[in-house]
Amino acid sequence: MTAPRERKAGEVADHVEGVLEGDPDVVVRAVAGIEEAGPGDLTFLAHPRYRAALDETRASVILVPPDVPCPAALTAVRVADPYGALQRVLGWFDPGFPGVAPGVHRTAVVDPSAELGPDAAVGPHAVVEAGARLGARTCVGVGGYIGEAAELGEDCYLYPHAYVGRRCVLGDRVVLQPAAVIGSDGFGYAFVDGRYRRIPQIGIVVIGDDVEIGANACIDRATLGVTRIGRGTKIDNLVQVAHNVAIAEDSALAAQSGVAGSTRIGKHVRLGGQAGLAGHIRVGDGVQVGAQAGVIGDVPPGVTVSGYPARPHHEAMRAEAALRRLPDLARRVRALEKGRRDGSGEAP
Amino acid sequence: MTAPRERKAGEVADHVEGVLEGDPDVVVRAVAGIEEAGPGDLTFLAHPRYRAALDETRASVILVPPDVPCPAALTAVRVADPYGALQRVLGWFDPGFPGVAPGVHRTAVVDPSAELGPDAAVGPHAVVEAGARLGARTCVGVGGYIGEAAELGEDCYLYPHAYVGRRCVLGDRVVLQPAAVIGSDGFGYAFVDGRYRRIPQIGIVVIGDDVEIGANACIDRATLGVTRIGRGTKIDNLVQVAHNVAIAEDSALAAQSGVAGSTRIGKHVRLGGQAGLAGHIRVGDGVQVGAQAGVIGDVPPGVTVSGYPARPHHEAMRAEAALRRLPDLARRVRALEKGRRDGSGEAP
Amino acid sequence: MTAPRERKAGEVADHVEGVLEGDPDVVVRAVAGIEEAGPGDLTFLAHPRYRAALDETRASVILVPPDVPCPAALTAVRVADPYGALQRVLGWFDPGFPGVAPGVHRTAVVDPSAELGPDAAVGPHAVVEAGARLGARTCVGVGGYIGEAAELGEDCYLYPHAYVGRRCVLGDRVVLQPAAVIGSDGFGYAFVDGRYRRIPQIGIVVIGDDVEIGANACIDRATLGVTRIGRGTKIDNLVQVAHNVAIAEDSALAAQSGVAGSTRIGKHVRLGGQAGLAGHIRVGDGVQVGAQAGVIGDVPPGVTVSGYPARPHHEAMRAEAALRRLPDLARRVRALEKGRRDGSGEAP
Repeated sequence: MTAPRERKAGEVADHVEGVLEGDPDVVVRAVAGIEEAGPGDLTFLAHPRYRAALDETRASVILVPPDVPCPAALTAVRVADPYGALQRVLGWFDPGFPGVAPGVHRTAVVDPSAELGPDAAVGPHAVVEAGARLGARTCVGVGGYIGEAAELGEDCYLYPHAYVGRRCVLGDRVVLQPAAVIGSDGFGYAFVDGRYRRIPQIGIVVIGDDVEIGANACIDRATLGVTRIGRGTKIDNLVQVAHNVAIAEDSALAAQSGVAGSTRIGKHVRLGGQAGLAGHIRVGDGVQVGAQAGVIGDVPPGVTVSGYPARPHHEAMRAEAALRRLPDLARRVRALEKGRRDGSGEAP
Repeated sequence: MTAPRERKAGEVADHVEGVLEGDPDVVVRAVAGIEEAGPGDLTFLAHPRYRAALDETRASVILVPPDVPCPAALTAVRVADPYGALQRVLGWFDPGFPGVAPGVHRTAVVDPSAELGPDAAVGPHAVVEAGARLGARTCVGVGGYIGEAAELGEDCYLYPHAYVGRRCVLGDRVVLQPAAVIGSDGFGYAFVDGRYRRIPQIGIVVIGDDVEIGANACIDRATLGVTRIGRGTKIDNLVQVAHNVAIAEDSALAAQSGVAGSTRIGKHVRLGGQAGLAGHIRVGDGVQVGAQAGVIGDVPPGVTVSGYPARPHHEAMRAEAALRRLPDLARRVRALEKGRRDGSGEAP
Repeated sequence: MTAPRERKAGEVADHVEGVLEGDPDVVVRAVAGIEEAGPGDLTFLAHPRYRAALDETRASVILVPPDVPCPAALTAVRVADPYGALQRVLGWFDPGFPGVAPGVHRTAVVDPSAELGPDAAVGPHAVVEAGARLGARTCVGVGGYIGEAAELGEDCYLYPHAYVGRRCVLGDRVVLQPAAVIGSDGFGYAFVDGRYRRIPQIGIVVIGDDVEIGANACIDRATLGVTRIGRGTKIDNLVQVAHNVAIAEDSALAAQSGVAGSTRIGKHVRLGGQAGLAGHIRVGDGVQVGAQAGVIGDVPPGVTVSGYPARPHHEAMRAEAALRRLPDLARRVRALEKGRRDGSGEAP
């Protein structure tokens, strides 16, 4: 953990290719949210919700969109995408992943047949089983578990208590948050004579480069073949990905969402929090699934769906609006019926 | 674990400030549910669902509301709130948290720079990183992880496999159930040129006194600043609390509920199981959110909401009732249309 | 892990009691999904979704229902239930659970008063507390935790990081996936004077024979008495089972479903993914609950329910269909009202 360096507003503007309004020599030493920031802090305005906080922030410098008026005392760096700019600036102040000393901790248990790349690190109480391979600089945190013949690429970082099951494969720069589970057995049973019989789950999980998996998330191994998470895809905490699911590149699954068995998800797909996808369906590239939506059939590329059962978002919104007016509609139908019973064709 | 002591019905009545009906010298040695209780057991009736079991219970003594008739053989202690009375009585029989010997277990790994208060306990295979501090009598269970410079107050109890990340702060008497995760990285990415770039999550989690966090629940650290859980708030198993969320005092989040980033929750709020709150919203004091509800906008104090999208409960119930009658309503509209086509203004 | 043996198509047909169409001497060396299979692989067709893949599969042998036409080059084994047949065949190729050496690993911490049956295994960094008992051949994987006086039957297999709390009881052949939590404290508080007071959770969990519990799933101990999971019931990843729930035999709970406190579930019940059951209700034998359904009242035996609040599936589907036509219905009511205002009884 290296101490964050001081930066000047002018350096910030150069780094994010923004337009500076104010004193280029103002110094920032840290980054903070708009409501918590104080003198010496750099802050940002990304969500319109916080525009009201702009007049009261005590920050020294702010990343802000071009069209938002700023108080005169605040040095502004104007950029089209303040959140993206924040990402670039935060690297300066990021202490990085908690360090784990390269090599094998004296309390770790590593099978002699396991292969560790240069500067790979195995932390306290971690276990690496026979035939497993860790790429260069890959780090298995405290209490981590790497199963038999599992393969991890280079520069992976596994937070404490992560689990990678037998024969599963991780690409380069994969990050597992605490207690993420890769390669649990899929939920597969044959129901025979009134009882469930276990279907052996003999497939694996293959995770691409630059994937991140959240805390306590579960990725089940395939019954046969592969459960696949494509390069760059990000999976949040407590997400369930069932056996034989395939997710393409650069998708994002928000917390507590779930994907049932054998479903295929395209690239650039987003699942909202607590959304659920049925098994054996196909969700096209660029699809966006609303929070808590339940998708029970195929979704063509580029569509935004919501509700249960999920349908195109504008339809769901129309139905929702109609539902809110439904008690009123029922009252109007009663009025029409009454008019008819009264033998009257006229308006009341 | 100390053996529960024997108590007499009269002592029970005194302890809970209840009114005794029956023999004050009946002895109870344990507490049991109304259907499982036997002779020598104290039981209780809190939920009306179990009133029918009253005539058949074999318990010796029962905590029961004033207005409920009891069989003559049963010694009754009448109290307005039997569940609250149960809480007071159970302390007599509670074996307490599983013991962990004070000091550092020989298999634990504690950095020399960590500070342990008097009678703090670090269990087998637990790890305490550099600069962490544990208050007096705080107990880190088997396989627990305390990150660099984390601070735990006094009398905290961490069940096995709990995780407290770097620089996170816990107050006094905080309880973490097994494998609770405090301080995982928030789910923050900037989407640039079709790929997600990681936003460093350099904030922390601050948890107030008397908070309890459920098994496998996740509380993400803030991007910047603090994710905050207020004093006395209780969080159930498998709950997700995202980065920069703030929850005030004495709220309760039931199992599998989730709160998206930067949302603020007041005090005395209750979330039902599997409820979800969108990001960047404000939920006022005393709000109650129904199970599985999806809240997508601000909720003023004191309101009870349900459904998706969540709305005031009575509105949701009206819409729900109307929805159930919708097929009938459609039939009636068809009848009206038919009547009109037939040129008839009369009732059928 | 033993190498899978070679098998001939004729052996496959005999083993699953199927009808062979093609060459009985074709050799299979592995099992694979229909789209991934190559020469030497056995595959299967269970879900109609994949029927189109039949013409293109490169598998050597296929398990297939009687009525599905097969390409001539493919040797077919016809069976009524291909998925059940797959289960029987996979046993040949199943490497079994990852091995843990019998006895106590040198890094494990086992209390001298714990009792281990013949060939029981306690893996690296596992902990077994005082008075706990493990049956013959039961295996506690890496980092597992067995609490004080807990009892595990014979032939149980606990994947790494599983947790079994104090005094909980597991039958024979129970499987816990990674980080499953059995016996966390129930979420029980008395709300007194504006604050939650902890109700001690002094009951236990009792799990029957042949139960399997998913990764990161949580089964809470009872407040008093027992939380019970019946023989043969299968519970998927990230499922929540609250205190004092009772689930009978041979039921299945899909991923991320949740059951609130004291609810009773019959045998042969199925919960879909993300389904939720309210507390204190009874769900009869053979009930099927749709994915994401929210059950708020008792459900009689044999009924299929869906939606929120859950109702019989055909009603939910009717309401859903009516909801989709609701904007149209509103338009038609407006037309009727207009007709009436125009003083016209005629059709437009």
